[in-house]
Amino acid sequence: MNIPQSSFPRVIIIGGGFGGIALAKRLCKKEFQVVMMDKHNYHTFQPLLYQVSTGGLEPDSIAYPIRKVLQGYPHFYFRLAQVKSVDTEQELVHTNIGELKYDYLVVATGSTTNYFGNKSIKKNSMAMKSIPQSLNLRSLILENFELALLTDDLHEREALMNFVIVGGGPTGVELAGALAEIKKGILPKDYPDLDTRIAQINLIQSSERILPAMSEIASKKAERFLEKLGVNVWKNLRVLEYDGKVVTTNTDTVFETATMVWAAGVKAVTIKGLNGKDLLAKGNRLKVNHFHQVEGHENVFAIGDVAHMAMEGYPNGFPMMAQPAMQQGISLGDNLVRLSEKLPMAPFIYKDKGSMATVGRNKAVADLPRFKFQGVFAWFIWMFVHLYFLIGFRNRVVVFINWVYNYIKFDREARLIIRPFKKKYTVKPKI
Amino acid sequence: MNIPQSSFPRVIIIGGGFGGIALAKRLCKKEFQVVMMDKHNYHTFQPLLYQVSTGGLEPDSIAYPIRKVLQGYPHFYFRLAQVKSVDTEQELVHTNIGELKYDYLVVATGSTTNYFGNKSIKKNSMAMKSIPQSLNLRSLILENFELALLTDDLHEREALMNFVIVGGGPTGVELAGALAEIKKGILPKDYPDLDTRIAQINLIQSSERILPAMSEIASKKAERFLEKLGVNVWKNLRVLEYDGKVVTTNTDTVFETATMVWAAGVKAVTIKGLNGKDLLAKGNRLKVNHFHQVEGHENVFAIGDVAHMAMEGYPNGFPMMAQPAMQQGISLGDNLVRLSEKLPMAPFIYKDKGSMATVGRNKAVADLPRFKFQGVFAWFIWMFVHLYFLIGFRNRVVVFINWVYNYIKFDREARLIIRPFKKKYTVKPKI
Repeated sequence: MNIPQSSFPRVIIIGGGFGGIALAKRLCKKEFQVVMMDKHNYHTFQPLLYQVSTGGLEPDSIAYPIRKVLQGYPHFYFRLAQVKSVDTEQELVHTNIGELKYDYLVVATGSTTNYFGNKSIKKNSMAMKSIPQSLNLRSLILENFELALLTDDLHEREALMNFVIVGGGPTGVELAGALAEIKKGILPKDYPDLDTRIAQINLIQSSERILPAMSEIASKKAERFLEKLGVNVWKNLRVLEYDGKVVTTNTDTVFETATMVWAAGVKAVTIKGLNGKDLLAKGNRLKVNHFHQVEGHENVFAIGDVAHMAMEGYPNGFPMMAQPAMQQGISLGDNLVRLSEKLPMAPFIYKDKGSMATVGRNKAVADLPRFKFQGVFAWFIWMFVHLYFLIGFRNRVVVFINWVYNYIKFDREARLIIRPFKKKYTVKPKI
Repeated sequence: MNIPQSSFPRVIIIGGGFGGIALAKRLCKKEFQVVMMDKHNYHTFQPLLYQVSTGGLEPDSIAYPIRKVLQGYPHFYFRLAQVKSVDTEQELVHTNIGELKYDYLVVATGSTTNYFGNKSIKKNSMAMKSIPQSLNLRSLILENFELALLTDDLHEREALMNFVIVGGGPTGVELAGALAEIKKGILPKDYPDLDTRIAQINLIQSSERILPAMSEIASKKAERFLEKLGVNVWKNLRVLEYDGKVVTTNTDTVFETATMVWAAGVKAVTIKGLNGKDLLAKGNRLKVNHFHQVEGHENVFAIGDVAHMAMEGYPNGFPMMAQPAMQQGISLGDNLVRLSEKLPMAPFIYKDKGSMATVGRNKAVADLPRFKFQGVFAWFIWMFVHLYFLIGFRNRVVVFINWVYNYIKFDREARLIIRPFKKKYTVKPKI
């Protein structure tokens, strides 16, 4: 891999997400050689992926080159690599571009979509965990509208304009809201020759309230916002299968749709060599102690979505969000410094800064530690916080401009099919 | 295709480029049913594609949804379609989504890369005529730098960091300049562990001066600008073959490179049924009379790159650029109105507004009808003109912000490998 030997201990960080970047920033200022590996050369600001899918933002403005984030640190190395396995005996990371020894290893691989073993859903549904996936969804949505124009079969047209989003967490809620706004503000203008009223947006939640990780008032208000926007919210409904045309559920309810988005589960991304059953908690997360050490390994750590720290009040680990990951990255960074100075490490203390979700213009819900509020103010706070945590000054300006423009013009201009998505649904075009 | 019958005559416009859009805008205000077909759902601002390839601009900000451009006109229809053939007897256009009768047909299909039958070049080189192609080039350039890090073979590393651009027209010149600026401003910071001085940018022109369509002073100045930036300008050199590793020429000069960009020729995009040898001029362009009528067809027209109008001073037709296309679209629009009112058509008069090319920051050349100038002023004019002709207010703002940012920070932040390009060059990574 052409990483030079150094007198500093080498920390390999696998993954350039929120946790990995926060940690690298911390370590690069200290006496460590930091090697970051990621399969992408950019950091993805995942909370805004749904805006890419719905044409509100360009993909490039929520991505940021990892090399640029950590530019100027002489002991930082980035490698575009796919990690194949880890050998904790030999302290080696094996990748598609070779192997590398570590002194400390940090797994910050994040999470991926969890289909819970359901093959039909995995094969036929859309996910939204990466920029390419979000672009595929953007293409598919637009392609479906174009196709809907071509068929005289009302059944087919309805299926093409029917959107089923499974999972009532923030991703599902935000996507449903954005699609509802597209239906209202853009479709009638873009497709005057199509009766766009038949477009339907369905949000399906298996439990009895959406946004289950938030407060009851947030759930209730978000649901009311969605209904105001015309989203059909289905609760206590479980999706069983999706064959590319029909969604079946645990009740008699079925949906005929060309687009099902699966946002109903995530699981940690594990690495061979660190995926023994005894190491893993629910959702494949690596069990770590209060210093982020992986069980049974002194110099192997995990942070972010992939880490499961048992802590009072968090029986399922910390929420798989940016905030815990960033805090863990900082904490681990400080601990590695302590460790190298032969000082005792400090246990991680999670500071819950609350959570937020946006439904549409002027409509968001926020559960902050001291206050819970909903509506316009929450929406402005949501935008401010997301701009604040977005990496890169240029990205912030471009996102801000887009938001102002979209707000004033009720528009989302990035509705471009740049890379067509292989259509799964076919219509018999009327000749 | 579900286009309703109308009492207005139907004009089918094939292609949503500069010519097609200008024409549609003109006709939509009059008594015509306008049907535009394009294989993309967006208009591409081709003059800025090189900035997408080099990470200076997001692809989405130089594309604009065609439906949005012509929103609000009740007799405008857009169809995402690939035209298969035209039947001028039956007055029918055949496409992948069905067929449609026309009263007037306008071919505005533009141009594509011309490899002049050279298979090795077609197979192994990169083109830059569309957004997906530009993104592929962006990915390849970045992937090559990542690969260059991994090899210890100096030969391989040089090939990975050697860029060969064939064609000294505006595209080649602009791309070479942008790459030279990346070499100088970004590579050393992004790749501190790589000796980026070995990166080479070669611009190859087969004739004795670059920018042959511009004035001699512009050519000379552009060449001096390029040399200042460290670009190797090769004149009177013809590329013969490129096997993916080695570029051979008509002299002893060879280039070992992982990236050859072919910007040395374009040809018109013809359509079956309108591609008889008697109809075509040099470069497959459709011969048209002074009213843009295709020879032998009263109601079939061609505008833009695909049209070849014999005119004094333009023995090879008008330059294949945005300006003639837009002027032709407007002229044809007015003529179709006259035709429908049984008035005689007016012959097209081309108003040469000059041409420009930019080499780098503060470095551009401009040949305007009254003045020729080079340097900072030309560069500002170039930016102003490109912003002016860019479609969409949001796009203009975003491009402007990006340019200001890039100018102040000497940076280009969109260096993202979002869709990896299948690598053609392999290295033996050092383990």
